[in-house]
Amino acid sequence: RYGYFGKDKPEVVKLMVCNIMGCLTDGTISLSANGDDKVSYHYRDQDGINMLKTDGVEVILMSSKGYPIQAALAHKLVERLGCVVKQEVDNKKTEVEELLKERELEWKDVAYIGNDKADVQCLELAGLSAVPKDGLEIARIAAKYTCRNAAGQGAVMEFAEHILLLKKKAKSQMEQDRIN
Amino acid sequence: RYGYFGKDKPEVVKLMVCNIMGCLTDGTISLSANGDDKVSYHYRDQDGINMLKTDGVEVILMSSKGYPIQAALAHKLVERLGCVVKQEVDNKKTEVEELLKERELEWKDVAYIGNDKADVQCLELAGLSAVPKDGLEIARIAAKYTCRNAAGQGAVMEFAEHILLLKKKAKSQMEQDRIN
Amino acid sequence: RYGYFGKDKPEVVKLMVCNIMGCLTDGTISLSANGDDKVSYHYRDQDGINMLKTDGVEVILMSSKGYPIQAALAHKLVERLGCVVKQEVDNKKTEVEELLKERELEWKDVAYIGNDKADVQCLELAGLSAVPKDGLEIARIAAKYTCRNAAGQGAVMEFAEHILLLKKKAKSQMEQDRIN
Amino acid sequence: RYGYFGKDKPEVVKLMVCNIMGCLTDGTISLSANGDDKVSYHYRDQDGINMLKTDGVEVILMSSKGYPIQAALAHKLVERLGCVVKQEVDNKKTEVEELLKERELEWKDVAYIGNDKADVQCLELAGLSAVPKDGLEIARIAAKYTCRNAAGQGAVMEFAEHILLLKKKAKSQMEQDRIN
Repeated sequence: RYGYFGKDKPEVVKLMVCNIMGCLTDGTISLSANGDDKVSYHYRDQDGINMLKTDGVEVILMSSKGYPIQAALAHKLVERLGCVVKQEVDNKKTEVEELLKERELEWKDVAYIGNDKADVQCLELAGLSAVPKDGLEIARIAAKYTCRNAAGQGAVMEFAEHILLLKKKAKSQMEQDRIN
Repeated sequence: RYGYFGKDKPEVVKLMVCNIMGCLTDGTISLSANGDDKVSYHYRDQDGINMLKTDGVEVILMSSKGYPIQAALAHKLVERLGCVVKQEVDNKKTEVEELLKERELEWKDVAYIGNDKADVQCLELAGLSAVPKDGLEIARIAAKYTCRNAAGQGAVMEFAEHILLLKKKAKSQMEQDRIN
Repeated sequence: RYGYFGKDKPEVVKLMVCNIMGCLTDGTISLSANGDDKVSYHYRDQDGINMLKTDGVEVILMSSKGYPIQAALAHKLVERLGCVVKQEVDNKKTEVEELLKERELEWKDVAYIGNDKADVQCLELAGLSAVPKDGLEIARIAAKYTCRNAAGQGAVMEFAEHILLLKKKAKSQMEQDRIN
Repeated sequence: RYGYFGKDKPEVVKLMVCNIMGCLTDGTISLSANGDDKVSYHYRDQDGINMLKTDGVEVILMSSKGYPIQAALAHKLVERLGCVVKQEVDNKKTEVEELLKERELEWKDVAYIGNDKADVQCLELAGLSAVPKDGLEIARIAAKYTCRNAAGQGAVMEFAEHILLLKKKAKSQMEQDRIN
């Protein structure tokens, strides 16, 4: 599974896009009478996002059309995780391509983690892509890397470590090339 | 399990009835001191309900007598999932038959997902019926389809996909019949 | 496991005592900053308690010393489940024996479900006793019946059904004896 | 796994240090729109902490830098569990060594339970150390004892029982030595 590294130079990963429901969270929405929704995430995934940002990777969270999280909740995620949150994304491929244009990046510079039908195109196009252990089969087929951890249980951290490992390998190879 | 399709023409599914506690939710009620109950559902099940509605199937949520969810919570479900919620249903068979009379439908037009004793009759009568993986054995015996997913973990989505697959098959068969 | 029925006439079960944390709930306490604790129970266990009450069995919930649930939360349980809740019980054996004296009952009239060290004596003394699947080993050894369901997942309902089945068997045997 | 007892005299355990996220809790943070975070712990772990305190062991809870639990939530934990909570600890080894200096203790007097990279040094240095079943592999390698229970499911209780068992064995050995 770690074997697809090579000519694409994944060391240039500049942007990580992460689906919220079913990747960062376990997909469960806790509903209460007083209007206050709840979603859960694992502290280790917050760590993974921090590691990526420290390494110069921009992290953007995305929610699909029809499954927005409440604005106040999205705001809290932004605050806690220090990421931009894009809500109600109708077509994720188009959305990511706009982000790429703004940043003058290409699909090969993107790491994408998704779990659902709406993520399939992005999982196929991104330089690096992953699916949590409990993602839909259609997403598991499209993703280049299948996490050992389930959504909301550290899948994002696992992908972050995977990305950073590949970046490190790429750097040492580049130095090796310079020496030769 | 997919083999019961045929003379009943399940393509006419017009009404989907879904038990709330133990089908849409995992059956757990979170109780807090300040009076605000919580139940959880999976975002994918919301997707399943939307897919059915888009395909012209009316979706009605039902809770059994003795297990009402708080009125305010029911109201939120209505809002979120865009379904009618019938609470405190004493006899589900009678209730569904009233719904059928109002809509001039028959049992064969109904898809029913249930998990408990109170659901057994409806599971037996409905044209299509399903039980989440963790439903009571008595419900598993009565249901025509046993979900791979547990309650609150995507069982409703799975049944929705199953219903839509059967509708699609029925349509293509009807066209085939017209050609012949 | 169902084989200990007989000379003790368990059909006279008049009192069911249920430990709260780790029997009715899964043992987890959800703590929030604003002072509002949460515990979860399964709707099916509420059904089990209702079935027992309908059959004339008094149901009392008990919490061990050191693990009180908030007064407001206990009050909600009383309201929802329609049981008396005894909090901060230091010695459960003594507490149950007082309940028995007040009601002129004996240990053989008691059904007890517990999961922890503090429950061991009661599990041994009660006419019928059960432990959830995930109870402590010391409690599993003491209990006469081990539930297939874990705490907070229907163990109380399972024990209730077990009690009612034994009562029914006892009644039919008594009628048989009368005929002979 | 119980075989490392001996010349270190672990009976002198005077201080137990416990990582909060992923040891006492299962690592999940429940986020709600209204600003009120939630973490969950198991009532049995509270029991374990009480058993240690009764036996004269000071218990200190610690959270890593970057994962503070809200001040109000930390305050509640202090209140409930009767422990000091050290938040935002940058270097746990240094922090514990300061605690040791203040108390004139040594690493061999410490029992440490941790699950993450930041815990590795302390797991190696402490006289007794444990990791919940679901801790990171790097922590599992460093810890002297691997719990059968997962974080938030009784791992702390299990470690407490383990510590007290070793203390008891040490005492009986000391008495034996005095006799000889």
